[in-house]
Amino acid sequence: MTEAPLTTASHGKIMLVGIGPGSVDHMTQRAREAIAESDTVIGYVTYIKLVADLIEGKEVIRKSMTEELDRAVSALEAARAGKKVALISSGDAGVYGMAGPTYEVLFQAGWTPDDPVKVEIVPGASAINSCAARVGAPLTHDFCAISLSDLLTPWPVIARRLDAVAYADFVVALYNPKSGRRTRQIVEAQRLFLRHRRADTPVAIVKSAYRRRERIEFTTLDRMAECDIGMLTTVLIGNSNTFVRDGLMVTPRGYANKYQMDNDGATRDGEKPGRSLSTGLNGWLEALSEAHAAGDSVATLAERYRLPADYIAATLAEPVEVLAAEPSGEESES
Amino acid sequence: MTEAPLTTASHGKIMLVGIGPGSVDHMTQRAREAIAESDTVIGYVTYIKLVADLIEGKEVIRKSMTEELDRAVSALEAARAGKKVALISSGDAGVYGMAGPTYEVLFQAGWTPDDPVKVEIVPGASAINSCAARVGAPLTHDFCAISLSDLLTPWPVIARRLDAVAYADFVVALYNPKSGRRTRQIVEAQRLFLRHRRADTPVAIVKSAYRRRERIEFTTLDRMAECDIGMLTTVLIGNSNTFVRDGLMVTPRGYANKYQMDNDGATRDGEKPGRSLSTGLNGWLEALSEAHAAGDSVATLAERYRLPADYIAATLAEPVEVLAAEPSGEESES
Repeated sequence: MTEAPLTTASHGKIMLVGIGPGSVDHMTQRAREAIAESDTVIGYVTYIKLVADLIEGKEVIRKSMTEELDRAVSALEAARAGKKVALISSGDAGVYGMAGPTYEVLFQAGWTPDDPVKVEIVPGASAINSCAARVGAPLTHDFCAISLSDLLTPWPVIARRLDAVAYADFVVALYNPKSGRRTRQIVEAQRLFLRHRRADTPVAIVKSAYRRRERIEFTTLDRMAECDIGMLTTVLIGNSNTFVRDGLMVTPRGYANKYQMDNDGATRDGEKPGRSLSTGLNGWLEALSEAHAAGDSVATLAERYRLPADYIAATLAEPVEVLAAEPSGEESES
Repeated sequence: MTEAPLTTASHGKIMLVGIGPGSVDHMTQRAREAIAESDTVIGYVTYIKLVADLIEGKEVIRKSMTEELDRAVSALEAARAGKKVALISSGDAGVYGMAGPTYEVLFQAGWTPDDPVKVEIVPGASAINSCAARVGAPLTHDFCAISLSDLLTPWPVIARRLDAVAYADFVVALYNPKSGRRTRQIVEAQRLFLRHRRADTPVAIVKSAYRRRERIEFTTLDRMAECDIGMLTTVLIGNSNTFVRDGLMVTPRGYANKYQMDNDGATRDGEKPGRSLSTGLNGWLEALSEAHAAGDSVATLAERYRLPADYIAATLAEPVEVLAAEPSGEESES
């Protein structure tokens, strides 16, 4: 959708390139090509070093970490002058990367997609994906990413998010967990998590995944703040089912809810392959209606399922039968 | 850490390969190499088709979508027989992909990392990254991924997560939002989100990003459930700051909290580049202490900042000064 209808030599382009964890092996073909076809490469000095082999002979603009908006302004200036610019982000260009600040600067400058300067975003594996791959399979269930940096975000916003996802049992990746100046944020994150999660919840501290100085440490929630954590670290906190075994951190997908794992994959009583769990939406709606009809109040049901009372009331107000009888398609899932 | 100390021809290997969105351009070099060096390729039929060009002459085992555990068992059998096996996942192998089920099956079979059969996980851009790249820059702030599939997860668990992240203002990607049989889950997700978010919150419906039949639709939270959504769709729900402009969905990083965006990047009163916001952790702790000293109760402060009262009480119990005076390092951030 951001492709140029026609490109001439005089029309510049900004390519927002996510280079993945930093080793050339884990860069996409498009990321390599985008850097290859660029005239100008702009990025944080550390990321520029990671792609040093690919940028010989190009104009290189190195910026410090605080200069995201400057990087975007420089990219626009170069592109307006007809250059093809590769703006380098580590991981994915969209995840706390240069894609957002660049669009903010472009819009501020009156740019629209009809502008001669075209924009392309090249996705890559973000730190959460790279770190997960190095520690096992921690992301097999719902997860989220939270940056602990309060340089642009008020602390109450960050704290509210930590509290919410700790309560709702997400696997959580903490980006920017700690820096020379910011040392208490990780302590506060731990405090908020310990309100909801067991002290022995597995935590992986991953530094520089796939880079020369990679270091992986497994710990637990109650000890996480004491670990060696810095700006190149991602902290992965497991959910209540995550376990560490033989040096691997794994979050079960939930097959044990449906299958007897030690009995040749037979389904549990009341469960069917390719169908929702008996405790899935329709089964739950039926159970809810029955319990309500039998006299359980909305407040009792809200407490039982740890869900808001007005949500319980709203679902009870809709007929279950009609929706459960929806025509079934041919698609199937696990 | 899962590298073999030595590899002989008779020792099998399982490579869990995330192929990215599906176009060869967005596959990593290591993903291509892993497929190239494999003897046997195992995957869901749709994903096998996406890498058809790379698997000529190899044994190919196509499985249906319900057969994740079967795929892992087949991979282990082939690896035990000395084969190099590429287990294909779309996106990232760790995100609702084959990495988790494979480790579950391996552990069940008594496998350990010392086993002759070695395991490698090859990360890739997940659907959240690919879809984000196609719509603009929606992931520039904290985000999470939630699967609406209740085939392995009880609905109350999913509902609790939706409620928590809607409240805490995350950007949210819904995976597996709808299938032939599961049609009400997206309606319930919408209901939960509308309890906390504005009806006009931007939503992007992205189908088959970077594939031949890519389709992108922008809508709003109150209309999202009416859209054409299926198993190849990812639904991206913006946070309270996300906007759509000129066909691009962008979540601001928060530069406007610190800088005067229309005034040559001057900082706002009381803010410094490279330092925490005045409303960051230390500034907030100071404000909290002052307000408490001036007579505001813990309950009042909890309500003001929408944070748990016991968290407010715990932070008030720790001295601010000592922590604010931590030695500052040389690192800097935006």
